Amino acid sequence: IQSKLPGVSTTIFSVMSKLAAEYNAINLSQGFPDYPSDPKLTELVNKAMKDGFNQYAPMPGNTLLKETIAEKVEKCYNIKYNPDTEITVTTGGTQAIFTALAAIINPGDEVIIFEPAYDCYAPTIKLFGGLVKTYQLAPPNYSIDWDMVKKLFTSSTRMIILNSPQNPTGSILSDDDMKSLIKLINGTDILILSDEVYEHLIYDEQQHRSVMLYPELKERSFIVASFGKLLHATGWKLGYCLAPEQLTKEFRKVHQFNVFSVNSPMQQAIAEYIKNTDNYIGITNFFETKRNYFRGLLADTRFELLPCNGSYFQCASYSKISDEKDVDFSIRLIKEFGVATIPVSAFYQKANDHKIIRLCFAKENSTLALAAEKLRNV
Amino acid sequence: IQSKLPGVSTTIFSVMSKLAAEYNAINLSQGFPDYPSDPKLTELVNKAMKDGFNQYAPMPGNTLLKETIAEKVEKCYNIKYNPDTEITVTTGGTQAIFTALAAIINPGDEVIIFEPAYDCYAPTIKLFGGLVKTYQLAPPNYSIDWDMVKKLFTSSTRMIILNSPQNPTGSILSDDDMKSLIKLINGTDILILSDEVYEHLIYDEQQHRSVMLYPELKERSFIVASFGKLLHATGWKLGYCLAPEQLTKEFRKVHQFNVFSVNSPMQQAIAEYIKNTDNYIGITNFFETKRNYFRGLLADTRFELLPCNGSYFQCASYSKISDEKDVDFSIRLIKEFGVATIPVSAFYQKANDHKIIRLCFAKENSTLALAAEKLRNV
Ligand SMILES: CSCCC(=O)C(=O)O
Ligand SMILES: CSCCC(=O)C(=O)O
Repeated sequence: IQSKLPGVSTTIFSVMSKLAAEYNAINLSQGFPDYPSDPKLTELVNKAMKDGFNQYAPMPGNTLLKETIAEKVEKCYNIKYNPDTEITVTTGGTQAIFTALAAIINPGDEVIIFEPAYDCYAPTIKLFGGLVKTYQLAPPNYSIDWDMVKKLFTSSTRMIILNSPQNPTGSILSDDDMKSLIKLINGTDILILSDEVYEHLIYDEQQHRSVMLYPELKERSFIVASFGKLLHATGWKLGYCLAPEQLTKEFRKVHQFNVFSVNSPMQQAIAEYIKNTDNYIGITNFFETKRNYFRGLLADTRFELLPCNGSYFQCASYSKISDEKDVDFSIRLIKEFGVATIPVSAFYQKANDHKIIRLCFAKENSTLALAAEKLRNV
Repeated sequence: IQSKLPGVSTTIFSVMSKLAAEYNAINLSQGFPDYPSDPKLTELVNKAMKDGFNQYAPMPGNTLLKETIAEKVEKCYNIKYNPDTEITVTTGGTQAIFTALAAIINPGDEVIIFEPAYDCYAPTIKLFGGLVKTYQLAPPNYSIDWDMVKKLFTSSTRMIILNSPQNPTGSILSDDDMKSLIKLINGTDILILSDEVYEHLIYDEQQHRSVMLYPELKERSFIVASFGKLLHATGWKLGYCLAPEQLTKEFRKVHQFNVFSVNSPMQQAIAEYIKNTDNYIGITNFFETKRNYFRGLLADTRFELLPCNGSYFQCASYSKISDEKDVDFSIRLIKEFGVATIPVSAFYQKANDHKIIRLCFAKENSTLALAAEKLRNV
């Protein structure tokens, strides 16, 4: 059998989490918390199951949840989305990304991505016959020269994928970036897929510049958000996609045949939870404190820390420690030092040798302290 | 924006369930039970959340669940599947079907389906550039003349989609069917996608002839199964895909970028539940009794019942009642008589006028009795 994705193997997140378990290493690789989510939320799932939310949810999402999302979005950004026609609940952010690409990309269409990039973008584009055009971001700041982005434009450019705050680099797009982007796409019919799953994880009093804040961008954007990240429950696989009516219509055509609908009791529970708490307000401080704590802990290791403006990932260079490739170095970190991380080359389609690893700090302080202790031996 | 699926609108199941709710009609349209699932199962979800199963499950599925699936399959069919390399847990049967097609179908590939067919097959094939070749099954028996199927074969035939017990007709494939199919595909590299989500809903002491029972078919088949149907919890969106290692490898390449993984606490709960009960053994009798009860209730209506050998759907002809198209008739049934059903033409790509509707009997006896009372007025 000939593979449709010949270059693809098991995603790095699975590989590293599996190795971490095998070697009993502290797992700072895959992005998920090691502390419990709010027990109130668990209680609400229990209640939803008892209340009978066990059969198919409506295809576009639980009605209360869609309304609650609209309210949350309006509270956070002062922007309105229509719950009936512009909001679709998804099986996590990943399914939203996959479905948006499935709905739009035809063979030969070109999609611009910024590398390092979350590892699902490129193979998903290719699965639909699209071509990946890559802009290379450079460490340590990973900033964008929009004139260079423009050089990637052709008559086949169909979409640009944004991701701010960015995974893995924690870099963020500024108001200036967004304005440059608007100038660039003005007069084209290029669409935007904006992966904003770390929208609330942005530090040092910086503001998240969601594409929805710019009418010229909003009207052509799929925006992807995640309750897994927001509620510390990545395993519940719940997210959503915001998009103008015409785009949502195409999105749902695929969504209904991909998963049909999303876990019913958990949608109801999250709706009731969000409705009654502004829980997400505190999350920024929560993670900023963790970031500061973790960076402090790593200060006396031989790793050099890159900036972290957002997300719950800290990148670090080991170029003063080793000449190894980052995959080899990461595996050795697990086996010899008991700490699992992600080699940042996994976020590139072509090999590179930046000697940078990514560490997830969505962990108990005690976990971070123990990891730092081990990293001090490196 | 140009649609990739121009002919597609909202799936009939959403449309009818929504109308049923609006008009407060008895909902025998979309296939889901109106009685609760086992409270023990709910308890186990609660326990799993408390036990900390709230972060990403392993990409191919919870380890215990995959082992439990392998045990269940062996108990039911005496066939072994390797949990590590041949079983993948999915967000319901629909996601498994979508993902298998995504992993295999290239532009220009032809896929043979049997109509009436579950409504996700054709658009999903087209989404990946595939061509749908349709074999028309004829009421009332919907049987297959395999010599005629052979006439659909070309050098581009890549896959055949089977669905037994079949939705919507309740027809089933016999041992003879399977043997004819083996002869047909012998010497070709045609793959099989076998949608067996109603595997346990097969009546009158007939045996489900899973493709896995035939080595010549098993080696080239994706088999799709559903916990939603098995455990009366369609809203939990949990199913799985069985396939030989090479096919599973390609399946997982797509799966990991589509949904990444499946709801973690629910996987753990279902694993513990299935491990400790043979709950699915009783399900055949349970639904056979319902089928008999419902057919009895409908006997003195003006509807003519078609055979129902499997699934939880009963098809009925209204040709003695009305000349309307089935969509119009179904909508009138909701508005004037308070019963929601599915027009079977929704399972065809091209219009037809068989005057048949589908009724779901996975309902409380009291619901079925009330529906029959209303249908007697028609
Ligand atoms: C879907 S597994 C990856 C989780 C994540 O966001 C990351 O580790 O980057
Ligand atoms: C995924 S909604 C449809 C449920 C079902 O199996 C049916 O009604 O045919």
